[in-house]
Amino acid sequence: MKQYVFGADVGGTTVKLGLFTTEGELLDKWEIPTHKEENGRYILSDVADSIQDKMKEKTIEKDQVEGVGIGVPGPVKEDGTVLGCVNLGWDERNVERDMEKLIGLPVKAGNDANMAALGEMWQGGGKGFRSIVMVTLGTGVGGGIIQNGKMIYGTNGAGGEIGHICVDETETESCNCGNKGCLEQYTSATGVSRLARRALASCDTPSVLRNSDDLSAKAVFDAAKEGDGLAVSLVEKHGKILGKALATIACVSDPEAFVIGGGVSKAGDILIDAIAKYYRQYAFHACKDAKFTLASLGNDAGIYGCAEAILTK
Amino acid sequence: MKQYVFGADVGGTTVKLGLFTTEGELLDKWEIPTHKEENGRYILSDVADSIQDKMKEKTIEKDQVEGVGIGVPGPVKEDGTVLGCVNLGWDERNVERDMEKLIGLPVKAGNDANMAALGEMWQGGGKGFRSIVMVTLGTGVGGGIIQNGKMIYGTNGAGGEIGHICVDETETESCNCGNKGCLEQYTSATGVSRLARRALASCDTPSVLRNSDDLSAKAVFDAAKEGDGLAVSLVEKHGKILGKALATIACVSDPEAFVIGGGVSKAGDILIDAIAKYYRQYAFHACKDAKFTLASLGNDAGIYGCAEAILTK
Repeated sequence: MKQYVFGADVGGTTVKLGLFTTEGELLDKWEIPTHKEENGRYILSDVADSIQDKMKEKTIEKDQVEGVGIGVPGPVKEDGTVLGCVNLGWDERNVERDMEKLIGLPVKAGNDANMAALGEMWQGGGKGFRSIVMVTLGTGVGGGIIQNGKMIYGTNGAGGEIGHICVDETETESCNCGNKGCLEQYTSATGVSRLARRALASCDTPSVLRNSDDLSAKAVFDAAKEGDGLAVSLVEKHGKILGKALATIACVSDPEAFVIGGGVSKAGDILIDAIAKYYRQYAFHACKDAKFTLASLGNDAGIYGCAEAILTK
Repeated sequence: MKQYVFGADVGGTTVKLGLFTTEGELLDKWEIPTHKEENGRYILSDVADSIQDKMKEKTIEKDQVEGVGIGVPGPVKEDGTVLGCVNLGWDERNVERDMEKLIGLPVKAGNDANMAALGEMWQGGGKGFRSIVMVTLGTGVGGGIIQNGKMIYGTNGAGGEIGHICVDETETESCNCGNKGCLEQYTSATGVSRLARRALASCDTPSVLRNSDDLSAKAVFDAAKEGDGLAVSLVEKHGKILGKALATIACVSDPEAFVIGGGVSKAGDILIDAIAKYYRQYAFHACKDAKFTLASLGNDAGIYGCAEAILTK
């Protein structure tokens, strides 16, 4: 194994970059803007230039580098094909091949949520496990399924798209994906706010949330920590919907651990405890002892995962 | 690659055995009784003896054989550990290691439903695909998830235990697993009969099923094919419950195809059409085009899968 590996997590605004040792130590991280002009045609060459500049700066030779992992905000197939990436202006293209031509190093591409899962398994909340399900509770709900250290990409790059499991077919509002009743409509940060608004409108129960301008997920979990009854019931509901969905996922991939990340996960133990409680209620007996942990790499999970993706290519 | 490979599918009554070329041609198949006496201590040596007898009969030398795949009716971890097998009287043991000692050839063990999935992908209804979900609708509902040609064993050997996804938390009757509302309570052969009995008891709708002694899944699907209204509604309900569950599974592993097998699958197109219709209604947009096919190897799927398991070890 060579000495270094690079990770590049391409977002809609910035590209996060990281230089790692192949043992998993982050030596340097930096960002460059994502140039979306002309259908994002400069994004990959910007990334290649930035990595080559860093190699010069650190006097790293090509033959010391294992390769470059690259995460993108869209579906990626195992062969490196990105099936369109609206945020970046990309149509279908093979990012691995294109990037390899630009940089002359092995490249591995993956969906950003899947890359984050791989990163958390390598050096974060999932460290020590080889088969995890990562759940990212942010604006939406992302997921990543890692099986024996390898990502499940899926036929259409939709492996781990757990935010779009239908959990309530009586839902009347639509999810961004076009379906109704998706997991992310209830358990993402925006989902928690939506449920809080609904709960307040449907009852007269006194609550600190009632006269607040802030119905964010953070406000709901904070109120629950203070013992606010309505907020506690919302946290229970969140735990039940998510815990039951994770019990379903366990009947498919039977992971060692679930790693919970994203902004909502900052709520900490109160969140994990509610999810785990309902998970154990609904899980198949063989899977009941799966572990629950919090993600620990924050916004760096992506670059870690990109680096690990090259090492497990 | 060597010339031959053996598959041994251990059931509670008989062990099915097959001799294959490594290209996938079944050259010979036979059965031996499963000796469950003394906690099944003779089962593996019986299998080893029978394979060695067959090698003598066919004048096959050890160095012409890739190995032996063995399927067992219980959870099997990827390292070959069987976590207890009530049907055979086995406690936890490493079947791969034990069998390798007995036969002096490489051995790969797996759960029988997972082996059947691998077999159907290799030479059956899933041929040509590399990532499938196999659904076996028999007395229970078994499943097998194959990703890029490899089985997902799961941490506790419970990979693909899709029959125990909770699909109705209002259910009052218990599943064999101890939970309530499991997929197999509705969509297995016994599940279809149960729903038929419930439907007949809850309405006065005329139906050919009403005065019949036979409320088997076959009778229900046959009546639906003849246009019996109540039977048609049962087939729709079956398709909705199963199609929605498969849409959930697609959000995890995003397979190319679903392969439907087991006794209920003999109903053919009427079954597949109903499942596929509801699948497409609930599936995440990227996964909507997954294929649906019927299993084609019947009771031989297991021995085929055992053989393929060695070839992909």
